[in-house]
Amino acid sequence: MAYVTWKFETLEKFCTDVFKAFGFSERDGNVITDVLLTADLYGIESHGMQRMVRYHKGIAKGQIHLDVAPEVVFETPVSAVIDGHSGMGQVIGAFAMEKAIEKAKTSGVGIVSVRNSNHYGIAGYYAQMASKQGLMGFSCTNSEAIMVPTFARKAMIGSNPIAVAVPADPYPFFFDASTTVVTRGKLEMYNKTGKPLPEGWALDENGAPCCDAPRVLSNIVGKKGGGIMPLGGSSEKLGSHKGYGWGMVAELFSSILSLGVTSDKCCTFPDKTGICHGFAAINPAIFGDPEAIKKHFSEYLQSLRDAPKAEGQERIYTHGEKEVAAAADRRANGVAVNDGTMVELLDLCQYLKLDFESYFPGYKPPEKLAGFAGNY
Amino acid sequence: MAYVTWKFETLEKFCTDVFKAFGFSERDGNVITDVLLTADLYGIESHGMQRMVRYHKGIAKGQIHLDVAPEVVFETPVSAVIDGHSGMGQVIGAFAMEKAIEKAKTSGVGIVSVRNSNHYGIAGYYAQMASKQGLMGFSCTNSEAIMVPTFARKAMIGSNPIAVAVPADPYPFFFDASTTVVTRGKLEMYNKTGKPLPEGWALDENGAPCCDAPRVLSNIVGKKGGGIMPLGGSSEKLGSHKGYGWGMVAELFSSILSLGVTSDKCCTFPDKTGICHGFAAINPAIFGDPEAIKKHFSEYLQSLRDAPKAEGQERIYTHGEKEVAAAADRRANGVAVNDGTMVELLDLCQYLKLDFESYFPGYKPPEKLAGFAGNY
Repeated sequence: MAYVTWKFETLEKFCTDVFKAFGFSERDGNVITDVLLTADLYGIESHGMQRMVRYHKGIAKGQIHLDVAPEVVFETPVSAVIDGHSGMGQVIGAFAMEKAIEKAKTSGVGIVSVRNSNHYGIAGYYAQMASKQGLMGFSCTNSEAIMVPTFARKAMIGSNPIAVAVPADPYPFFFDASTTVVTRGKLEMYNKTGKPLPEGWALDENGAPCCDAPRVLSNIVGKKGGGIMPLGGSSEKLGSHKGYGWGMVAELFSSILSLGVTSDKCCTFPDKTGICHGFAAINPAIFGDPEAIKKHFSEYLQSLRDAPKAEGQERIYTHGEKEVAAAADRRANGVAVNDGTMVELLDLCQYLKLDFESYFPGYKPPEKLAGFAGNY
Repeated sequence: MAYVTWKFETLEKFCTDVFKAFGFSERDGNVITDVLLTADLYGIESHGMQRMVRYHKGIAKGQIHLDVAPEVVFETPVSAVIDGHSGMGQVIGAFAMEKAIEKAKTSGVGIVSVRNSNHYGIAGYYAQMASKQGLMGFSCTNSEAIMVPTFARKAMIGSNPIAVAVPADPYPFFFDASTTVVTRGKLEMYNKTGKPLPEGWALDENGAPCCDAPRVLSNIVGKKGGGIMPLGGSSEKLGSHKGYGWGMVAELFSSILSLGVTSDKCCTFPDKTGICHGFAAINPAIFGDPEAIKKHFSEYLQSLRDAPKAEGQERIYTHGEKEVAAAADRRANGVAVNDGTMVELLDLCQYLKLDFESYFPGYKPPEKLAGFAGNY
């Protein structure tokens, strides 16, 4: 698939106008735009502009509601439970994380569990809302079941990412990882290029390891069984039960504490997805001098980067380092968007009566994708 | 290696007498015994009686101090930092977790970071202290570096286990996992039996994957480089950066927040190991009705156990289920202890002037191990 590169500001203007056209307030639209474009800046293409179509579909199908606001249904000085009333995931996520941050600032810790939300983009965005304010931030979400528990043949747990963001110099610690070995987006990339999947990623409808991307994806779509392995693979030898356990931890803080919809039932309702999230913020000052803690952490991270490299490797990365570099590069040189996504954006403009040409002058979809618009 | 089975009560009496002979108070001795034997009951042999020798050596070498008590050096209603003053890890661990539980009961959340401790046994023990009281429990520790970060050739992070325990029926959720793909004990088992290591476990001194157990272990002992891969292996393809990230999370709550010794420096001092721990307890009542949350969680766990099984599999386990069965079996039928450990216990009795024969009547070490006692 070919890519075309656009200025960051172009995409920002486009997104802002799209969410305004959908009827979001300026504030909410800005949040959604920021979450999406942060993913693109970080090089997490699967969660950026490419996801616009998912939100478009969600709104059109009535699973994402525009006329609602998140509601705090239970609260203590260190916690809250929020009902998202099936609004836009990013709006609910930012609202919930702000609540967690507020509590961390006054009580030292804030833990917020959210039910009835929708896909909220990259988990790390919310964790970073805290770390940008000098706090430790945590965020996790459940999702439509895709992870097959160890020894099962049916997906019962979502990709269930967990993100942790902590202040450090020069690179803030930023760890954002699905608890499956990979996400569905990776399978789709292999499928598009016709390559067999690497061993240790996916399971067929019988629960056996499978490298046939079209078969696995069609099983997933048709809910015929199989799915993606937990981090650690499909047997206990490489730690399958560990990825499965981390998936459960994400489930706990999202769907369990909020009495929300668990991954096995997410996205099975006509009028909502039921997706749940978990958020936490911790003020390092409750352990002493935040500056001393930050310095101690930064020094350890530096010692990791300075450690002897494996043969053939030139660099050891600490978590978040790649994202800082990627964002600087894309702000300077633009963001590459693939043709498939461009066609979806064209379609979105037709739907919202926005002038595609004014944002992306001269862009013409490749012949083979021309009929794609409007068909998803 | 051959095993000999002893009644649980025999091992309990023996451990209690050993720690009394070392000079621990009855209360502290009971805690240490309970942590060790819980590991044996759960079938985590590497962390039970087999570890007695490690504590014996630690005390003899002066890295574990007997005449000290853990000290709270910083405290808020939701947090504490504790200096263990290089006492016995289990005593410090239980003290710290009790602190976290106390805070969770009064403030909803308690997070405790500990510096200058020692090996504390299974992380899960402490998490379970909380779950047995209806709370969510968390525990993690750093340790002597054994994990090689992605693209490095030197171990910089410990096995850094993280444990989570949460009330549920009929099996409490109990997840206790190193953030390396396996622990060093697993490598030692393969070494003893002369089998090559499975692919995806270890790295040689150049940072290349290696299945040669004697080579990897001799490198680890001699600190010549290499070590164990993070959960997810040695490349990003299977998620190496994720296990590496989880190892960092354990480091954060243990050595970073307490301003303690990071894994890369643990066990490099003559008079202490510097090992650090992290603990947390969360009262589910800060999210609503704890019984409703427990019921919701229990139902989800049951649906996982009831899910369709992979071809050739008869059972899907949820975390903690195996441990409940193992403990019931061992309480009824005894605990198997290997000959190598028995020889170490014989030696320990000589050192402490305890009558080995009175605990383990008729036991004779196999010929080939007879010279082992006193030589470690």
